[in-house]
Amino acid sequence: MNVPVVLMLSTLPDAATADALAQAALEARLAACVTNVGAVSSHYHWKGAVESSREVQLVFKTSVARCDELQRFVEARHPYETPEILVWQVHASPAYGQWVNAETQRPLHV
Amino acid sequence: MNVPVVLMLSTLPDAATADALAQAALEARLAACVTNVGAVSSHYHWKGAVESSREVQLVFKTSVARCDELQRFVEARHPYETPEILVWQVHASPAYGQWVNAETQRPLHV
Amino acid sequence: MNVPVVLMLSTLPDAATADALAQAALEARLAACVTNVGAVSSHYHWKGAVESSREVQLVFKTSVARCDELQRFVEARHPYETPEILVWQVHASPAYGQWVNAETQRPLHV
Repeated sequence: MNVPVVLMLSTLPDAATADALAQAALEARLAACVTNVGAVSSHYHWKGAVESSREVQLVFKTSVARCDELQRFVEARHPYETPEILVWQVHASPAYGQWVNAETQRPLHV
Repeated sequence: MNVPVVLMLSTLPDAATADALAQAALEARLAACVTNVGAVSSHYHWKGAVESSREVQLVFKTSVARCDELQRFVEARHPYETPEILVWQVHASPAYGQWVNAETQRPLHV
Repeated sequence: MNVPVVLMLSTLPDAATADALAQAALEARLAACVTNVGAVSSHYHWKGAVESSREVQLVFKTSVARCDELQRFVEARHPYETPEILVWQVHASPAYGQWVNAETQRPLHV
């Protein structure tokens, strides 16, 4: 029986910022795994012009229970004025889904 | 309150074709942002054999309202006989979702 | 009319393992296309510590009908104790969706 888990995608300005955010989310047990997809090029509308930036894309894997808290965590720490934070639910294979849920348990004593 | 937005994934034969399509979709206000994920390798069935190609993957971020029009736009301009166009709805953080909706408003005078 | 198809994401330890799994899934007609996104960095909880690994990310494109069988195939051949296997349904443009369905037909004589 597959297990619902949540993917959250965000883009950061550089590798150092991305790795620091990934590490902080893991230490707070707000994600079980964060994949750094590496450098991407983004093209977008910004204040009336079409702009382009090199960015680094992260994909967080978290539980349904911790998803909202992870989003607030990323929003609070993200360096952009309007960060890209995109969330969708997927089905994980049973062992992986159970692992995501176990690793994102709220710590008992903090 | 998160905002529904749409991700559309397509693969193009090379960076020049990908960047031209991204730019055209942005200028037509059919996407707020297009991420060029860079070079990928695709392996696939084609006319009886397993083939492999180097390609460039794009991810368009658009509004629910403009999604169908973006799809027709990509289908009409894509150089492949059977282009990969995959669409799914996600939840954007409020500021990003509002930005996607605002940037993909149909222009008043065109 | 768009056609439902399934994306399945998995990460493998290296390019050789990833390409072999992609090829095997294609030969078994359990996927129409497999995209190798290339090298990614994963950061994750494992047995009490935060670990990081270089990995290779694959995205399988398959039909709704063959999705469960593809998942069992990947689980059986994956080298990890707890492989990441994430599945979600998307909407494909009509021609691409029909192609995915046609290429993942179970062979008549095997």
